[in-house]
Order: sequence, then structure tokens, then C-alpha cells
Amino acid sequence: MISDSGVDGFEFAACRAGLRGKDELDVGLIVCRQPAAAAAVFTTNLVQAAPVILGRERIKSGRLQAVLVNSAIANACTGDEGLANARRCAALTARALDIDEEMALVSSTGVIGEQLEMARFEAVIPELAVSLSHSALPEVARAVMTTDTVPKIAGRQSRLRVDGPEVKISGIAKGAGMIMPNMATMLSFIMTDANISPVLLRDMLPGAVEQSFNRITVDGDTSTNDTVILMASGRSGGREINDPDSPEAAAFAGMLHDVTRDLALQIVADGEGATKLVTVQVRGALTDAEAELAARTVADSALVKTAFFGSDPNWGRIMAALGRSGAVFNPAETVISVDNSELVREGRLVSAAAERSAAQTMAQKKFTLTIDLRAGEAAAEIYTCDLSLDYVRINADYRT
Amino acid sequence: MISDSGVDGFEFAACRAGLRGKDELDVGLIVCRQPAAAAAVFTTNLVQAAPVILGRERIKSGRLQAVLVNSAIANACTGDEGLANARRCAALTARALDIDEEMALVSSTGVIGEQLEMARFEAVIPELAVSLSHSALPEVARAVMTTDTVPKIAGRQSRLRVDGPEVKISGIAKGAGMIMPNMATMLSFIMTDANISPVLLRDMLPGAVEQSFNRITVDGDTSTNDTVILMASGRSGGREINDPDSPEAAAFAGMLHDVTRDLALQIVADGEGATKLVTVQVRGALTDAEAELAARTVADSALVKTAFFGSDPNWGRIMAALGRSGAVFNPAETVISVDNSELVREGRLVSAAAERSAAQTMAQKKFTLTIDLRAGEAAAEIYTCDLSLDYVRINADYRT
Repeated sequence: MISDSGVDGFEFAACRAGLRGKDELDVGLIVCRQPAAAAAVFTTNLVQAAPVILGRERIKSGRLQAVLVNSAIANACTGDEGLANARRCAALTARALDIDEEMALVSSTGVIGEQLEMARFEAVIPELAVSLSHSALPEVARAVMTTDTVPKIAGRQSRLRVDGPEVKISGIAKGAGMIMPNMATMLSFIMTDANISPVLLRDMLPGAVEQSFNRITVDGDTSTNDTVILMASGRSGGREINDPDSPEAAAFAGMLHDVTRDLALQIVADGEGATKLVTVQVRGALTDAEAELAARTVADSALVKTAFFGSDPNWGRIMAALGRSGAVFNPAETVISVDNSELVREGRLVSAAAERSAAQTMAQKKFTLTIDLRAGEAAAEIYTCDLSLDYVRINADYRT
Repeated sequence: MISDSGVDGFEFAACRAGLRGKDELDVGLIVCRQPAAAAAVFTTNLVQAAPVILGRERIKSGRLQAVLVNSAIANACTGDEGLANARRCAALTARALDIDEEMALVSSTGVIGEQLEMARFEAVIPELAVSLSHSALPEVARAVMTTDTVPKIAGRQSRLRVDGPEVKISGIAKGAGMIMPNMATMLSFIMTDANISPVLLRDMLPGAVEQSFNRITVDGDTSTNDTVILMASGRSGGREINDPDSPEAAAFAGMLHDVTRDLALQIVADGEGATKLVTVQVRGALTDAEAELAARTVADSALVKTAFFGSDPNWGRIMAALGRSGAVFNPAETVISVDNSELVREGRLVSAAAERSAAQTMAQKKFTLTIDLRAGEAAAEIYTCDLSLDYVRINADYRT
């Protein structure tokens, strides 16, 4: 983490537009002084929100200068009117900033099926454009929050090579519910001052997303709005990085992975109603796919997640989840550990003392469940949270 | 439903063995006076409980005379000791009844990973054998309950042809948690006095299970112990039914489907913490597989199920679940109805009045959600329940 989240070349602003009666920051603006090199990854859900439809189109140029973000209303399942509203928001933003309309994007999160309240956007966009500042990224992180309880910011700073300029990456994210592989209801905006080509950004981003946002799960649901946008201002100076095999590209990819993973862990730790962050590690699987399947099945099991909530080392539920995952293994050889302390060996409870000790570990806010299937060499890791009473409270009440 | 659940040829008994300190009926016995024609379907989970391993072996003969059932302890993940205990329970049962050991089966449900308390079984099995009665099936239904709040019994009575004898089928089931396709933690025992061949029973049972127990979902988890056993005493008289294409076989299959479907609906209505029984109907899918995928994804979505709990017609969550299901459709044509009243048309909310009306319907204990994907002709139906605060309470505390 870095203390100053600002990134050279970028400015930010956020305000209260009062969307759906919300009395918190709900609209934010991210602007790059020149068209930035840019790449994005969007939801795989067949139902695509209007801003996602627009975003897919505009990101093709590999250049982007402004992103207007809002919470409260997802602008999903809103038909032609929703798409026109998304375009209009982008146009208003471009006009206020005096930039090319094609350089502006919008990103929305919130309730599905309601139209954006355009009068409110018309009122606030010009205000946002004149209140931009280098240091307001934390306010944008607040403006995209829905059921998140804390804003999520991460950053890294490093030289990509010994004699090169210092490069910075700062990112924000929102998450909370509908968190699942394939990007869930989550938005993330990542800014860097690195001088790097759009093609390289486009090649790098999916890998970073795969190892971070696609490795977390809160409730197995995925959303219509998921978006990760990466923008590079080039203001760090130095030659443009455009060779994927260069040490600079590798160093930048490493920084990017760190930032996306940091944000992903912040999202799952702040999952709706979550009281615990649990890393589910599977090793000894026959194939990578089976390792991931086994880890995801355990990490998504409602029975396992309620046991996490109750600090109950209910290894039988873990075995049952592994057994239905599709991974091939011999249950009589399975080893399960909680924070490196063995709970199950050869498919059986190690001892009552081991069970008591695991219960104590599980009462902490963070622990790792390690499962060794002893069938092969493949491993995978998924990050999840517990399923608490508050998850149900939040989601039975969300719209009221 | 029939008032007398007894079936000619069968006797039943149940008692309090005090397993894990339980102070309710926890062991039951089902006995047929002669070896019955029998068939069974077991869990598809890779992790198989000891009684399942034993059952798979013994059911191959197509004959069965006694089933000893217990709750509290699942005898799963219990290794060689667990398998020896299952065999020992069957042997004690056979000895007490003076029948061939191979004709006795055991079936267990409860906590995974603990050994059966054999001293208690040794004490109660002889007692059960001398207290058998024609009318005690409801007590056996009570003895298999875990987190079930009500016992589950269903029956049908009919002539298989006009001039044939009256035939009866009675079944019991237990369910509650880990209910999901592929039979979940559920046990069901179905008795009939029909005179029907083991081969026909074996051919018929999977279809009945597929259209009933495999169509319900409580929490997406499946268990290590699932078992459905069907036994026929032949006491109704008449010729043995052994031609699958005969009208009698079709009539019997129809009765069997009715009983299994009745029991399945009782299970999901009594799902852990469930306050509502919801039928999710998908039509207009391109293929049967896509119809089922779409229905299951909606029926399993934690966000949709919490909205059911909150009586919130949150159709955006339904659209998002459909969108990630893998079914191919145009979201802009989707129709969603609650109890035949349209909530969404062409992928958009019909009106605020329709939303209020749907909220009222969803406040009832039972309703049907119908989704028309308007992509083809295929349809599927899945039965689910809501995800309530009590589901989390029950499962965070189950072992304590």
C-alpha cells in the first residue's frame, strides 16, 4: 500500500447526486489529462448492462480519457432507453471536459431494472468536471460503494528496471454481493503512470483478473455490470513498453497482479455480511481443472460457509463438498488442515484436540483451509468468506 | 395421502437409543415378512457413507427383508471401523429377526465423521425386533428426522387394472439440509404390497427419483448418505408384474411417481429454515438441458433465494441468474411471471402495480415463478425454498 493514491496524469472527483434518495457520494469521475492507453475486462453474463455494452465498443480503440462511475442504479435490463442514457452520460462528461465523446466511458452498479435519473446527472457532471483533483481517488472509491462497508484502494510503486523511472499503479474496487468467478458485481478502476502500449495492457489485464477477481467468491452469483478498466497515462516517462517479453513488461505485470490481488482480497473480506476471510487451498489434485473445481466447490458450499461463520471445524461438510465437486481422489487419503495444523488425516479426524484447536483458529478473522487430495500434483487457491446472518438480512432487505 | 400408512406384508418399529445424547426417536426398523423384491438408488457423491457401500453390494440380489435406520450419526468418513459397524448392525438385525444376514440393510443420517455407538445398537435392536407392528411407520418417519421439523409420509392406493387387486404404496422420507440434485442428505423408504419383479423395480426407481428427489434444491449441497429404497411384499396378490410394457407396470410407475414427488415436495417445504416452497418453471428454452440449467441456476441462487425470503420481486437478480446459467436467450424478450401474473415482459418491469402485486403473492407460503425465455420449446421445473435467517442459524450451530 502507498500513502498517496494519486497517479501522475490522473485527476478525480466525486459528489452526492442523490440517486434513489442516497445521501452518500454516488457519482465519481476519473480523468486522464491526455487520452490514456487503456484496456478493460467485462462480465461474462449473457445479460449485459448498458454501460457494459457501450464500454465493450469504446475500449476497442485502446484509448480512453474519462470514466464516469455511479452507484445506486446498475442501468441493467433497461433496454434502449438505458443505452441512450449511458451514451448521454458519456456525452455530458465529454462536453464538460472538452474531450472527444469516444474517449468517455460510463460504469454503473446498483439495482437492476431502473433507469438512471438523468436530471441528476445533468446537474452534477459539470460540477464534477470543475472540481477535479489529483488526490480525490479515495472519494471515487467511496462513490462506487453499494453494500460495501469500506472503500477499497490498493497501490504499488516501483522501478520497472534499475535505471528506469519510478512507476506507480493505484486501483480502486467495489464488491460486496454477487461475487463469484467471472467477475460478479464488481467494478475496478486501475490507473498507472507507466508508459505502456494499449496492446500490452490488453494482453496483460485478463491474466491479472484471472488470478485475482476471478479467484474470489462470496455467494456464487455473477452480475450484469462487472467491469475492470486499466488506464495508463505514460507520465512516468521512459520509452514506451511494448515488448511483452521485456523485463519491464514482466515487472509491470507483477505490480499489476499485486494490485488486483490486493483489491480482490479486500472485496471478499468485505463480502456481504462477511465476518471472516478464508483462503481455500487445494493441492494434490490430478489436474489444474480438478484442483480449481474442488477449491471452488468447498468455497461456495453454503453448508461449509455457515460452518465457517459458526467457527465449526465441520470437516464432514468439507468432505461432502469435495465428494460432489467432480475431482477424482480417494477419500480415505485426504488431508485437511486449518492454518497448517492437521484436522483430518487419511480421511478421518486426527483427534478431539485437533478439532478444538481448529475451532479456535476458525474463530479468527482470517485463516487458510488446506486440502491435500493426494491424487496428483495440481493445486489451486480460492478466496471466500463465511455465510452469516447478516448476508441474509442484507439481501432480504436490499431494495427496501 | 391415505389415512392408514401400513402396507400389507410390512411391519415397523422405532425407539429412543439415545445416540449422541438425542432424546427423540432415533432408530427405526422396517421388516418384510418374506424377502421382498427390492431396488435402491444411492448418492452420486464420491464420498460414500459405510451404509451406502454396504447397501450397494446387498441390493444387487434384488431381495431385501429388513432395513435398520438411524439418525444422529451418518457413519460417513468412518473408514474400516465404520464399515464393520454397519455390517455388525445388519448382522444384529438379522439375528434378532432370524433372517439371512444378506437380507438386512442399514441406513444412517446425521453428523459425518463419528462412529456409531455400538453398545446402544446392541441394546435396542432386539427390543425393536419384538415390538414390530403394522401401524408404526409414522414412528420410523420420526426416527430418521435430523433438522426436519415434521415427519414426511406419503401414500397412494389404487387398482393397477380394473379387475386386479387393490395395491398400496407408502413411503417416508427425511431431508432438510444438503438438498440438491442427485439426492442430497435424504433418505426415503418406500413400501408396496404390489406383486412386482425386482428387475422391474430396479428399472422404474431411477426415473421416479429423477422426476422427484432430483428436482428439489435447498442449498446446492449433496451428501454422502442419500438412499432411496423400494421394497415390494407381493401381498396384494395377483400375477407378478414383470413386463415393463404392461398397463399394470405403467399404472404402478404412475403411483410410484406420485409418492416420490409428494415426498420430495414435503422435503423442500421443510428445507432448513425454509418459510416458502417455490416452484421455478422455465419454458421457451432451446433445449431440455438449457431449460433445466436455467431453472436450477435461478432455484440455487443465494441472491434470488434471499429475495424470496424478503418477498422482494427482485427480477434483476433473476435476470442475472438466467444470464450466467449458460442457457441461450435474448434478455430483451424474457417474460417472468409470479403465479401467472406477469412481472417482466420483454426483459423489463411491466409496471409498479405488477411489482406490488408480485410482492403480495411472494408473501404467501407457496408460489410459482415462471420464466419464458422465448428461445425455443423446451421446459423444466425445479422446486426450491427461500434462504432465511434460520438456515444460517441452523447450520452455524448444527453440531453444538
